[in-house]
Amino acid sequence: MNLILLEADEIDAAGAARLSGPRAVHALEVLKVSAGQSLRVGMVDGPRGTAIVQGIDGRSLDLTCAFEATVPPRPRVDLLLAVPRPKVMRRLWAQLAALGVGRIVLTNAERVERPYFDTHILGPECYRPLLIEGLQQAQDTRLPEVSIHRRFKVLIEDDLEALCGKGLRLVADPEGSGSVGAAVRDHAGGDADGRVLLAVGPEGGWNRFELNLLAAHGFSVASMGPRTLRTDTACLALLALIHDALRRD
Amino acid sequence: MNLILLEADEIDAAGAARLSGPRAVHALEVLKVSAGQSLRVGMVDGPRGTAIVQGIDGRSLDLTCAFEATVPPRPRVDLLLAVPRPKVMRRLWAQLAALGVGRIVLTNAERVERPYFDTHILGPECYRPLLIEGLQQAQDTRLPEVSIHRRFKVLIEDDLEALCGKGLRLVADPEGSGSVGAAVRDHAGGDADGRVLLAVGPEGGWNRFELNLLAAHGFSVASMGPRTLRTDTACLALLALIHDALRRD
Repeated sequence: MNLILLEADEIDAAGAARLSGPRAVHALEVLKVSAGQSLRVGMVDGPRGTAIVQGIDGRSLDLTCAFEATVPPRPRVDLLLAVPRPKVMRRLWAQLAALGVGRIVLTNAERVERPYFDTHILGPECYRPLLIEGLQQAQDTRLPEVSIHRRFKVLIEDDLEALCGKGLRLVADPEGSGSVGAAVRDHAGGDADGRVLLAVGPEGGWNRFELNLLAAHGFSVASMGPRTLRTDTACLALLALIHDALRRD
Repeated sequence: MNLILLEADEIDAAGAARLSGPRAVHALEVLKVSAGQSLRVGMVDGPRGTAIVQGIDGRSLDLTCAFEATVPPRPRVDLLLAVPRPKVMRRLWAQLAALGVGRIVLTNAERVERPYFDTHILGPECYRPLLIEGLQQAQDTRLPEVSIHRRFKVLIEDDLEALCGKGLRLVADPEGSGSVGAAVRDHAGGDADGRVLLAVGPEGGWNRFELNLLAAHGFSVASMGPRTLRTDTACLALLALIHDALRRD
């Protein structure tokens, strides 16, 4: 935890907040704070700031927070991901938030098994704390927006543009020719607000219909080399490459 | 499993091999092969090839393998990694092999907890199958070499050059200025055999002594942006960036 995130409703108008639960335990036992010391904090979807520990009451901390004037920008990458098996998805939430994504669009695909949708891993009560864990790791405050879509065709044809806008759309495939980084740099050229939507398929890949539908809706095929990766490894590697290319616009 | 790896001693001089155990189950139940069909195979640290299924005997397969004339090149990236906690290390083995590393050098550091060394996760009987799983995913054959070092200073001062040679040495730190990709491209310039050694510290980072010792032994500090990542996420993201930069030499 490199920054402690607070919900807006935990902080009063004067900047006072009471920290309890796991965040307080972390501050006391890992950061070993004492009264008068400062902590890096942030407000979910708000600014970062600094908190002074005013007092410690058992396992709770009383803080006074001062926030920066500006809110960190929303990460410029969105992820369209065929729902992976629950064990993999559980591990991905925090890592995706740490690497930085604006929106996570989870979708069905032929090679997604039905039971993957019927799991608590896809419920906000499970994923929200994991996303916040990733943000706290990465010192970000911008909570990725999450939506879940059981009908791939309806999603791509009707809903995707409203969700993710018109930015660059990439689908990763080992058979693609251009590199992901080159595609991002070529497209971005000066458009500092341009967004990138990355599509990552299920284990076993998108089927031909799905790839054609993605292509018909503006997705270019890009590659990260000849090695076939598990979807979770591929997600992380591709997000790293896209963020790196965006930083070097 | 996108390629089935065989040990050299499983294949006779005529290319015949008998497959049993998890690889045979995978071939039968996931790939659903039958007699006369072909499979992508590879020999550990040897060439890739194709196998024809000659016969199926219960849960075993008789194969005739024909291998390519050349062996895939060893991945040009080595990893110097402060031993992470066992749960994280267990997950990393296959992912590191899938992304591609020539050598994994595991080291102690101040912020590595002692019990991390006393775990079966660091034994070849645990990690070798996981590395092979990653190679089979990525369709590679070159098994990363692994060594474990309990004395950081002795490793860096006396042993590292013999292990990893004289290539580019990078240590990742959020406070570094240059990007990892730029460092690789600037260094590589035409040296198609040049190797890169990437150092990734423990959760909480290298201490000042460790960073100074790395700097004194040729490690440049490079960054992948302002987000602080967990060491496992950082490993995967940095390996992706380095491989991408090497491909674009």
